[in-house]
Amino acid sequence: MRIGELSKATDVPVPTIKYYLREGLLPPGELSSPNQASYGDTHIRRLRLIRALIELAQVPVATVKEILESLDSDTEPLHEQIGRAHRALTPTRRLSATDEARTAAAARVADLIHDRGWLVDPEAPALATLIDTIAALSSLGQDSLVAHLDTYADSVEAFTALEIEAVTANPTRDQLAESVVIGTILGETVISSLRLLAQESISAERWKDR
Amino acid sequence: MRIGELSKATDVPVPTIKYYLREGLLPPGELSSPNQASYGDTHIRRLRLIRALIELAQVPVATVKEILESLDSDTEPLHEQIGRAHRALTPTRRLSATDEARTAAAARVADLIHDRGWLVDPEAPALATLIDTIAALSSLGQDSLVAHLDTYADSVEAFTALEIEAVTANPTRDQLAESVVIGTILGETVISSLRLLAQESISAERWKDR
Repeated sequence: MRIGELSKATDVPVPTIKYYLREGLLPPGELSSPNQASYGDTHIRRLRLIRALIELAQVPVATVKEILESLDSDTEPLHEQIGRAHRALTPTRRLSATDEARTAAAARVADLIHDRGWLVDPEAPALATLIDTIAALSSLGQDSLVAHLDTYADSVEAFTALEIEAVTANPTRDQLAESVVIGTILGETVISSLRLLAQESISAERWKDR
Repeated sequence: MRIGELSKATDVPVPTIKYYLREGLLPPGELSSPNQASYGDTHIRRLRLIRALIELAQVPVATVKEILESLDSDTEPLHEQIGRAHRALTPTRRLSATDEARTAAAARVADLIHDRGWLVDPEAPALATLIDTIAALSSLGQDSLVAHLDTYADSVEAFTALEIEAVTANPTRDQLAESVVIGTILGETVISSLRLLAQESISAERWKDR
């Protein structure tokens, strides 16, 4: 199909498609004449993935490009691909807190990981984020939330097991890689939206008039 | 204390503090002489909150300002304040999908909300995000994840109830408002980090060599 039809099929404007082509997010179409490229189902699928990552998960364009290059690589180990998707979800900036709160938070998190037998790279960005966030909650007088860390972890373990089960339903390595990347990133958006809706509902019941 | 001491106490550089003062995120200090302002514990606390929102939860500065103004207002109902914190967490952009997938996703979400008896504003941004994300997952062939939506919702209900219990431990309305805002925003970062660590652990066990 031509670029105009690709635009119609995916509801993505032609100039946006051209931008993704220039940035190398979308592979070029097949040249049917010197000035005419033809696009196929793989382009439709890839465009949907790009839009979901950028619009819903708010992943920056440069990171989307990295993720797609990693997906298209036949050699990068799956575990590395997952790490790349994780980095797309993790803030790179960090609080420079070096105080007691951070030391206590680091010890708390080390205990949690040990007790659960999790295999976690000590350099994982999510580890630093978790420690900093717990330190911030303590500094802000929200220790009651920190006290429930294990209950949070229980819930998270429950749905992570389920996510892994769901994505491993796909048999080939390529499909598995794509499922894991999509599941990691869009699964986050599903959980986050559900949480906000559940909170809104409880808030409406309790505090509508306060 | 002087601005230099405030900087030391919070580990935030003086130019950054001056920027927050200019932007109105931080209230001015008390003038002890025409060229000398003095800062107190409320400034330390507010600075910690600002840093946590900006650095950890990656909330844009303009949104942090809105959230703080809302926190400082004595008149804005608590439910509105929570809505404001929610908007800070929700993408404002949306996919323009209008196809079958979106209609099916909307019906699926309406059923879920009805079955659970959630009170949700039909205009809640998280509702549109959830529907769009489910439509995207279906379009991308990830229906196996969508099939588990109820298990996701079970987990989310479990920790949301716990979060509400934790933040309502704070008695006054001011403290409650701050707790709810902090809990909503930083709680998201806690869950997201835990999920990535749990995934990394399972990924390391299963796919280290694939």
